[in-house]
Amino acid sequence: MSGSLTIVGTGPGNPGQTTPETLEAIAAAELFFGYGPYLDRLKLGPGQSRVASDNREEIDRARSALNAAVRGAKVCVVSGGDPGVFAMAAAICEAIETGPETWRRLEIKVLPGVTAMLAVAARAGAPLGHDFCAISLSDNLKPWELIERRLRAVAEAGLVIALYNPISRARPWQLATAFKILREVLPITTPVIFGRAVGRADENFVVIPLAEADQQQADMATCVIIGSAETRIIERPGLDPLVYSPRSAGI
Amino acid sequence: MSGSLTIVGTGPGNPGQTTPETLEAIAAAELFFGYGPYLDRLKLGPGQSRVASDNREEIDRARSALNAAVRGAKVCVVSGGDPGVFAMAAAICEAIETGPETWRRLEIKVLPGVTAMLAVAARAGAPLGHDFCAISLSDNLKPWELIERRLRAVAEAGLVIALYNPISRARPWQLATAFKILREVLPITTPVIFGRAVGRADENFVVIPLAEADQQQADMATCVIIGSAETRIIERPGLDPLVYSPRSAGI
Repeated sequence: MSGSLTIVGTGPGNPGQTTPETLEAIAAAELFFGYGPYLDRLKLGPGQSRVASDNREEIDRARSALNAAVRGAKVCVVSGGDPGVFAMAAAICEAIETGPETWRRLEIKVLPGVTAMLAVAARAGAPLGHDFCAISLSDNLKPWELIERRLRAVAEAGLVIALYNPISRARPWQLATAFKILREVLPITTPVIFGRAVGRADENFVVIPLAEADQQQADMATCVIIGSAETRIIERPGLDPLVYSPRSAGI
Repeated sequence: MSGSLTIVGTGPGNPGQTTPETLEAIAAAELFFGYGPYLDRLKLGPGQSRVASDNREEIDRARSALNAAVRGAKVCVVSGGDPGVFAMAAAICEAIETGPETWRRLEIKVLPGVTAMLAVAARAGAPLGHDFCAISLSDNLKPWELIERRLRAVAEAGLVIALYNPISRARPWQLATAFKILREVLPITTPVIFGRAVGRADENFVVIPLAEADQQQADMATCVIIGSAETRIIERPGLDPLVYSPRSAGI
């Protein structure tokens, strides 16, 4: 008998941001696969076990999870944020496409979650209130030239930009180069938001003009949002400023 | 004494996709402002009341909500999906920026939610697994020429595109024109996904090649996702196909 495979995202880390549907799927599963820090967020009960792996082993993890499901286990693959945004759902699909026929017969469910840019945007006000995009700054799986071309294209087109995977030990210079490119296209006063672990005790949250945006403010778990030329800041006495992108443009 | 204002999103409509944090904020509020159909999703108790308005009255609604909060009420402004994505958070910020000083002294909280494109993507597989953008097709608040320019720019740059507000009675032709433009840039086999009320009894969910994409498949509550040239379909015996965008590109 064949098992099942559910792919979930726990949200940005604040337990209040994991959906009830996802909590239910976690309660119903037997065997969990994921990056260790995401699995650490789960409270597993008796009869539930976990297989943690490193965050650069997505395809191997996907294959192990699919194999376990085919063998009959109720498998849950765990991402942070939303599992469909630079996360495990695409890795599972890639594995299925190149894998054995049995993997195509499995019941696969993907449950949506709150992805990092939405939590960072909510903390700031409404910077994603107008057209926007999400771009991974990792050049592990695409050439850096393509990333540069995309950054220029979306900034020139007036989209707000959310950067995922902005920096890591193996990719130390890419974020600084991205800021340099964006300073050539956007006003240097454009608001830039660095958000990490928003709503948690170890929150890091900074709003700064593009002119002063510095890659040192980010780590691999930071989501960086760069406004468009229309993005604005409302100063407030005694409160954090609100950063928002007006719903209208070019009128 | 001044009240407070919390801006929430109920998610795409499936009750299991409203976050616990949002449910808690709804339980704690007294006075609710929103588009009628979104307010209809709430189960209000004694001591809670609601002010419904039409979906083209965002700024008036924002001002009414801010006034009520300044007068001391615990106000909750309710969007569908995520309140920061083409929804009320930006309208509240706009109202504050041009409103009286007292509005800037209010405690404002925005709580993130599951926005429509994430739910539609999860239903399909992982079409947003690579770089993507979200564009509102409404030309009520921006010129149509700007929308056309953005569609061309992001399709040429290789981003998957999620279209919000694709069509309405007052905007009957824009979606067909958008498909026409995208057919000039993208392969006509590119997968297009129409998703509406995903996970609910009245779900509408269609995957079709760009060549056959027809605006009749959408209404104002539909989210339309157009793949990039890299987006793929995995056929599965007896199951819905999986649509996904590989994590790698241009390699």
